[in-house]
Amino acid sequence: MSFVVKILGSNSAIPTIKRFASAHVLNVHERFFLIDCSEGTQIRLRMEGVKFLHINHIFISHLHGDHFFGLFGLISTLSMLGRKQALNIFADERLRAILDTVLNTNEIGFQVIVNPLNFKETNVILDTNALTVTSFPLKHRIPACGFLFKEKPKQRNIRKEFITTYNLSVKAILDIKNGADYRLSNGEIIPNSVLTVVPKPPVSYAYCSDTQYYEKIIPIIKGVDLLYHEATFTSKDEKLAKATGHSTGEQAAKIAKAAEVGKLIIGHFSSRYKNNDGMEAEAKKIFPNTQALKDGDTFVLNSQ
Amino acid sequence: MSFVVKILGSNSAIPTIKRFASAHVLNVHERFFLIDCSEGTQIRLRMEGVKFLHINHIFISHLHGDHFFGLFGLISTLSMLGRKQALNIFADERLRAILDTVLNTNEIGFQVIVNPLNFKETNVILDTNALTVTSFPLKHRIPACGFLFKEKPKQRNIRKEFITTYNLSVKAILDIKNGADYRLSNGEIIPNSVLTVVPKPPVSYAYCSDTQYYEKIIPIIKGVDLLYHEATFTSKDEKLAKATGHSTGEQAAKIAKAAEVGKLIIGHFSSRYKNNDGMEAEAKKIFPNTQALKDGDTFVLNSQ
Repeated sequence: MSFVVKILGSNSAIPTIKRFASAHVLNVHERFFLIDCSEGTQIRLRMEGVKFLHINHIFISHLHGDHFFGLFGLISTLSMLGRKQALNIFADERLRAILDTVLNTNEIGFQVIVNPLNFKETNVILDTNALTVTSFPLKHRIPACGFLFKEKPKQRNIRKEFITTYNLSVKAILDIKNGADYRLSNGEIIPNSVLTVVPKPPVSYAYCSDTQYYEKIIPIIKGVDLLYHEATFTSKDEKLAKATGHSTGEQAAKIAKAAEVGKLIIGHFSSRYKNNDGMEAEAKKIFPNTQALKDGDTFVLNSQ
Repeated sequence: MSFVVKILGSNSAIPTIKRFASAHVLNVHERFFLIDCSEGTQIRLRMEGVKFLHINHIFISHLHGDHFFGLFGLISTLSMLGRKQALNIFADERLRAILDTVLNTNEIGFQVIVNPLNFKETNVILDTNALTVTSFPLKHRIPACGFLFKEKPKQRNIRKEFITTYNLSVKAILDIKNGADYRLSNGEIIPNSVLTVVPKPPVSYAYCSDTQYYEKIIPIIKGVDLLYHEATFTSKDEKLAKATGHSTGEQAAKIAKAAEVGKLIIGHFSSRYKNNDGMEAEAKKIFPNTQALKDGDTFVLNSQ
């Protein structure tokens, strides 16, 4: 099962010519999960070759414009492309009224379902065959949630040579994948550990933006393979970070270290800095496996 | 007085990597008038080097998303850039509720005034020292207006040599610009026609999108220097054009010819065509001075 995170936009509030505002897309075996949807996200999706109609779930962390102003255009375009299937959005319940008002003068040919987020506690908000998605409270100026995307444990992989050697039925294959041994006609039993190989462990990705330094998220994102944590400011602007409900590079790295994540990616950079070297440098001192994002960066967590 | 039209977006509903949706900007001596505001307009303004804070008036032809979904991000950005001055938007009165709902979770530090358009009749909606703006009804699926931007007649230009030769006072210069003769101390009168040169005639620009073929606009846009008329389809799709409230290249050219305009520019092209040669070619047969738009095209009507 492929599990790939692509960065559509890495800037904070104001988009620039080189950087769009917040939007990530998670590709789980060609099913696309959109995380935040800043203005121009539909253009970025097109640039990255993502098939629009394969997006069925959108997660909006909070209702600041740089995280959701791209929804209107994307929904309109999906409709013009002929979409009929319902679209599930997970967001602040106030998004319902916003969408109804904005899309009122436009013709939308499919159902847009807004699933309200709970900003008080951690909740599993989606559970599919492939993954679970958990929302958890962040600490920002307005209600905001982070999202944890966790691949489901995979079935054991059957060794292909056994399928042909013993001419296994579909039922037998499924049983073996689920852990059964196989009994030959002569009564001999081949144990499951011989028939199968251990699958790769499930991978996970957490998205934390926008938030100030907030230790309560650490147990929730513990051990994720990839953590996106906003780092709007450098430490010299730490007071400003706190006042505006944002984090510094150093603070993002402290969270990553305490949560023992595999890799930290940082973004949502303020336009006040000439470049993002400051945020990355101070984060790396605490958590070396840190990367400052650029639009288009891609992280393959599992290519199976 | 400079009078320059710049095309920010030339596509119809669905933006592509190369073309944004409808937005033009008129620069009258570094005061900017934004006409329609599709998703990504703030990015396009940045690409074209337009100073955001010099935009005081925005004209929204109608409330289909490809003509106004960029407003939310632009208004948010103007606020983050520290704007305090009120912003005047001319639009369907329903925009008021839309802006209130969408911007509710964001902090906007200036007043946004929505001046309701009248979709039943022609109205002068803005009258400054430099120009008048007139709105007029178009014929589309929902209420839509076109806009006519007309430079004011300019004062006569005084010949510079007279200012030094006769050491003219400021009052005398203003009087002469307004048409007065000048009396020398010896009683001799120098007629205004000698003192001044005739200024360039005032220029005008009309914006007509979205609309089906609609002859009632012809007297309103009569003789404009530059006409933008949508041409979403080619003539082979004329029935579709009518059904969707749009025009063909041929129809745009018929309007331009009947209105005896200086130049016709066409845009709002449907993505169904590989390129826009079809619309341009059929228009040129009827009105040779036609140009199919690309994003970034610029038309200098007056460079004084």
